[in-house]
Amino acid sequence: MKIRSRTIGGVLPSTIITLFMAVSLPGFSQAQEARPFRLVVHGGAGTILKESMTPELEKAYKDKLSEALLAGHNILKSGGSGLDAVEATIRILEDSPLFNAGKGAVFTNEGMNELDSSIMDGATLKAGAVAGVKHVKNPISLARLVMEKSPHVLMVREGAEAFARQNGIELIDPKYFYTERRWKELEQAKEKEKAEGMKKGPAREATPAKPSGNSTADRAGDDHKFGTVGAVALDRAGNLSAGTSTGGMTNKRFGRVGDSPIIGAGTYANNRTCAVSATGHGEYFIRSVVAYDISALMEYKGLSLKEAADTVVMDKLVKLGGEGGVIAIDKAGNIAMPFNSAGMYRGYVLEDGKVVIRIYKD
Amino acid sequence: MKIRSRTIGGVLPSTIITLFMAVSLPGFSQAQEARPFRLVVHGGAGTILKESMTPELEKAYKDKLSEALLAGHNILKSGGSGLDAVEATIRILEDSPLFNAGKGAVFTNEGMNELDSSIMDGATLKAGAVAGVKHVKNPISLARLVMEKSPHVLMVREGAEAFARQNGIELIDPKYFYTERRWKELEQAKEKEKAEGMKKGPAREATPAKPSGNSTADRAGDDHKFGTVGAVALDRAGNLSAGTSTGGMTNKRFGRVGDSPIIGAGTYANNRTCAVSATGHGEYFIRSVVAYDISALMEYKGLSLKEAADTVVMDKLVKLGGEGGVIAIDKAGNIAMPFNSAGMYRGYVLEDGKVVIRIYKD
Repeated sequence: MKIRSRTIGGVLPSTIITLFMAVSLPGFSQAQEARPFRLVVHGGAGTILKESMTPELEKAYKDKLSEALLAGHNILKSGGSGLDAVEATIRILEDSPLFNAGKGAVFTNEGMNELDSSIMDGATLKAGAVAGVKHVKNPISLARLVMEKSPHVLMVREGAEAFARQNGIELIDPKYFYTERRWKELEQAKEKEKAEGMKKGPAREATPAKPSGNSTADRAGDDHKFGTVGAVALDRAGNLSAGTSTGGMTNKRFGRVGDSPIIGAGTYANNRTCAVSATGHGEYFIRSVVAYDISALMEYKGLSLKEAADTVVMDKLVKLGGEGGVIAIDKAGNIAMPFNSAGMYRGYVLEDGKVVIRIYKD
Repeated sequence: MKIRSRTIGGVLPSTIITLFMAVSLPGFSQAQEARPFRLVVHGGAGTILKESMTPELEKAYKDKLSEALLAGHNILKSGGSGLDAVEATIRILEDSPLFNAGKGAVFTNEGMNELDSSIMDGATLKAGAVAGVKHVKNPISLARLVMEKSPHVLMVREGAEAFARQNGIELIDPKYFYTERRWKELEQAKEKEKAEGMKKGPAREATPAKPSGNSTADRAGDDHKFGTVGAVALDRAGNLSAGTSTGGMTNKRFGRVGDSPIIGAGTYANNRTCAVSATGHGEYFIRSVVAYDISALMEYKGLSLKEAADTVVMDKLVKLGGEGGVIAIDKAGNIAMPFNSAGMYRGYVLEDGKVVIRIYKD
């Protein structure tokens, strides 16, 4: 009886009958069935068009997103934490060369891979993040380590890697991150830049081409900015969590950091409202404090998750010129996945293990 | 007549009479007099107690804060932008050894100074920030350069310095940042850590002492975390702007970055609501998205500037365990300077040039 009353504590009266039915079956795990637990994932937003996709590549993306979702789902199903599910899901995407995170990250102007990641626990508002790491296979796990084993939230570059080493995370040869596809993208980006420089006059090597001051001028080659991965979860304990991981943008310079490791911009989770992971043109997402703004619209203005996410992604970001999208989940298990770009790799899995994956606007 | 109608465009009917009176005097500058323009500054929050302060030191702090405020005030008075005023004000505090920013920044565990800064323009929501720079005399000016001359918002470490060099900012010898006072603070922090390590058993060099996961456990030596400087302004054009600059925390490791360079946490400005600069235990300020939360409470919940700033600093941050304060100004020129620590160096200057400086709770 103790188990039942504890379970009922946090739920609405209308679900009590369901709970009694569940509790009438043997075992605690059956009683847990009544609590929603869900996982949502994204693999980046951008100019993803059906006409430029092969059936094989589309299948590869869908299979990998499904695999990642099911790994997290199995953790949630057996009563594991949302943080564990988010981390496990993102690790699979980091390990896949398909996505711009971990293996398969895009190259910087110097031909390196600089990785950013963050994670947040909606129950405690604890958070961890790393930016500009070059020798860490799974940045999401390092972000979680920063959250759990340090008094800090954000560590950057060599310092973050020193922390990793001291906590038993093996540093790897950056060659691990190499993929031919991303190297070619860097070469193409540099060729394009050179051609543009020739048109304009004497090239000023590595000088920002446009003094655009965060303007929408720098929109050519949108693909270079996207491909971030992320996951948000509601676990059986009712806790929300969110995580994001990225390689940033192709041909990036000057130690540029986008929104992915910024709590409130690329990642946010709060049990009172929602969990959010963003993907898109990071500068606009930082300036718009995207992830926290969705939470604030729910908490302060009483908007639903869908209304709040749509307001930020489909209205406010569009007005500012910021392309991309978010995945979000609220404490009731509602899911939103708005994006204002051509496509966004996205999907979710519900209690019954049914996986839904989408890529284009549909 | 063109000037008058343009001036009247953005104001409430009740002020039209005042404006007509102003416009009846010769010259455009007279018409401008009716628009409020204000500047607020902070020089850090923390365990600042009257009993541990000498009259000479108190005078030195007050004089420098006044000098910084008046420099910004003169820019605003002559019709300059809030961004110019914020930058000029912060540069003076960065150049003073009294504050933990620029000259006088605290030392890292490795005996270096790593500087963070950010700036935001409330009219355009453009922003710029740098983190972990070691050779830049005035990080606030580099943050502004990032905002105005790059498509990015945040640049870190060597990359940010490469951008500085390419844009004509001279890199300096890190010895410039040395002050005996801060070096002694580092020595004391290390001594204390060693003594604590001896008590606990075998020292684990450079391992985070407490796996506190952002908890309030790491509160000893609070002074090491504070001393950030910042400024917020409302200029005659009605634009809000905010800037923040810091040396972070004494004895910091692992490339730790606090809230100062994080848009939404340490700095935020939006003409629709307010401009905010924060100072305090950065990890809590990041997790609480402090600066943007004040803006969101005003915009979405209809709170006044004072109500919103008090809610975040005196209630939400206190509940989470986050010590520090903010300065904030709204579009009507209202000012708020709440802090939940023992003291905060703070002050403001109004249209008539009268400067008010406060240090303790009073």
